Amino acid sequence: MSNELNSKDSPREALQSLRWENDSLSLLDQRLLPEQTVYLRLTTPQDVWEAIRELKVRGAPAIGIAAAYGVVLGVAGFEGTAADWLSEAEKHAAYLATSRPTAVNLFWALDRMKARARDLASEGTPTVAMTAALLDEALRIQAEDEETNRRIGEHALTLFEDGMGVLTHCNAGGLATAKYGTALSPFYLALEQGMKLKVFADETRPVLQGARLTAFELQQAGVDVTLICDNMAGHVMSKGWIQAVIVGTDRVAANGDVANKIGTYSVAVLAKAHGIPFYVACPLSTIDLSTPTGADIPIEERHADEVAAGFGKRTAPHGVAIYNPAFDITPNEYVTAIITEKGIVRAPYAENLKKLFIN
Amino acid sequence: MSNELNSKDSPREALQSLRWENDSLSLLDQRLLPEQTVYLRLTTPQDVWEAIRELKVRGAPAIGIAAAYGVVLGVAGFEGTAADWLSEAEKHAAYLATSRPTAVNLFWALDRMKARARDLASEGTPTVAMTAALLDEALRIQAEDEETNRRIGEHALTLFEDGMGVLTHCNAGGLATAKYGTALSPFYLALEQGMKLKVFADETRPVLQGARLTAFELQQAGVDVTLICDNMAGHVMSKGWIQAVIVGTDRVAANGDVANKIGTYSVAVLAKAHGIPFYVACPLSTIDLSTPTGADIPIEERHADEVAAGFGKRTAPHGVAIYNPAFDITPNEYVTAIITEKGIVRAPYAENLKKLFIN
Repeated sequence: MSNELNSKDSPREALQSLRWENDSLSLLDQRLLPEQTVYLRLTTPQDVWEAIRELKVRGAPAIGIAAAYGVVLGVAGFEGTAADWLSEAEKHAAYLATSRPTAVNLFWALDRMKARARDLASEGTPTVAMTAALLDEALRIQAEDEETNRRIGEHALTLFEDGMGVLTHCNAGGLATAKYGTALSPFYLALEQGMKLKVFADETRPVLQGARLTAFELQQAGVDVTLICDNMAGHVMSKGWIQAVIVGTDRVAANGDVANKIGTYSVAVLAKAHGIPFYVACPLSTIDLSTPTGADIPIEERHADEVAAGFGKRTAPHGVAIYNPAFDITPNEYVTAIITEKGIVRAPYAENLKKLFIN
Repeated sequence: MSNELNSKDSPREALQSLRWENDSLSLLDQRLLPEQTVYLRLTTPQDVWEAIRELKVRGAPAIGIAAAYGVVLGVAGFEGTAADWLSEAEKHAAYLATSRPTAVNLFWALDRMKARARDLASEGTPTVAMTAALLDEALRIQAEDEETNRRIGEHALTLFEDGMGVLTHCNAGGLATAKYGTALSPFYLALEQGMKLKVFADETRPVLQGARLTAFELQQAGVDVTLICDNMAGHVMSKGWIQAVIVGTDRVAANGDVANKIGTYSVAVLAKAHGIPFYVACPLSTIDLSTPTGADIPIEERHADEVAAGFGKRTAPHGVAIYNPAFDITPNEYVTAIITEKGIVRAPYAENLKKLFIN
């Protein structure tokens, strides 16, 4: 195994997907990773709209946070009546909502910003103070996301021990969120606490989020990470190098079935065959009790060129049939535990997931 | 699933890796696949040496056959005594042996050509007749390889039924051999016999032999083939689309453990979890009774750049640790049957593989 730049003695500053700085939004352009680390300075709602549309920012939580700051940029410097200020904020929120029409977190964050703006306008404070308070709301959305992820990481970390090898698939990391990420959160916390984990990252074909994002953000932070191809996961498990698997998820059904990036199911089956626990990390907002089972989750199929010509060069014959599902479903019997900000849930999931939503 | 150019009604001519034609060796330049199908005309031993060295031809059987023709090209047109003719043949054979110093099939084929040349020289026939007889020997080597592969395919086909979905990994195809290949042989025979099989080809990271070679040669022949990423195999099995897996092998140990391209082990574990038979196709020459178990087979590790920057574009961060084993071992308990030119062998392998070598 080649080990060039890992196992740093002192942790470095983790990459941050976005940050409010000098009255503007500093945003990491994720399209350029891993080759270039470029932070963009966004100063208008238009800048934010384009950043979302052009995938410079990705990950549902990160997109929502970026849009919240976009509303603040829209009313920055605005002077006029409270009613005009509110209508300005609402106009920018409506505009930002068009940047990515299917992003649930985007609408959630914008709705929250609009509600806050209405409250502020009804109080009749000066526009400068209202704008400052609206910025506070955006900062709070980001801080809450960070706090959720930190709690997920803390719960997850109770399942890990010093010296363990942990495999992850795709990118459920800090780059998709305010900070820490979900599945990657325990790796950052372990680093903070001096616990040594040896992380293996599946490269995650076809779009290679594991290679381009997970390996990159963990390497930047100083986490001991080794990149492998997806088809090496079984071999690495058979060598006894993996004591746990942890992944994120796009949606958890009421029965604990898990939808996540294609390849997750294969990893879960391999983990079970090797007696390795398979953990899923996610915020409560990802658990959808209105979806009964994994069979009720539609699997998006994506363009064949992701498989045939994804590396800058054509690697498959023209015209060959290609099957390219973006996600797969891991049935609940493969899931050892689901780790949320409110704690760790185990089977029977139909019962125990429901309890999370009872205060 | 996109289905652009498959399920042809009439089978087309399969690609041929190499062929003796017009007093020269016609050889498919495999480095240019799948983008270009270029047949080179090789007329000298030097041409053949370079084709082997530069990987224009790959696959142990195909390399051996090419070298045999190389010896013929070396003595073509030679006039002189039988002794001079023999020494000319031996000189070219020695030279061709330096093209790929680790290729066992290469030495085997050249030794056979030298032995035949010595026999011919001792008979004292005219040089023109000796050269013609030496060409016959090379043609025989190719014909025997083709016959071996055809028999493997015939035995394998008894395990398949019309309408089955069959998954394969890497390339154990016609491109690596005289014709048919080993694991792909039943697909060509099914096509000849009008049996419909639906083949799924893993792309086989990091070097993508499945995408570049298997999908290509099956598509060219008119076999119904669908390309998937390696991490989709489990998902495709869970959908009920796969009724059998068949792969080639680099070496079978005496106990039936199988060394093959990285990712094979993961596929075998997934097959077992889904109750799908996992078949290994190979000639007897690949079964090594002097290797007791898979643990005795060394696993070559290859350069990290195959994973990080294999296709014209860097896809992983600089300096990240990468583990890149070229092969893995599939323990015999995952192997449903091993299919050879002498028939189908099942467990207990330690006993039953030995019987293959008793006439």
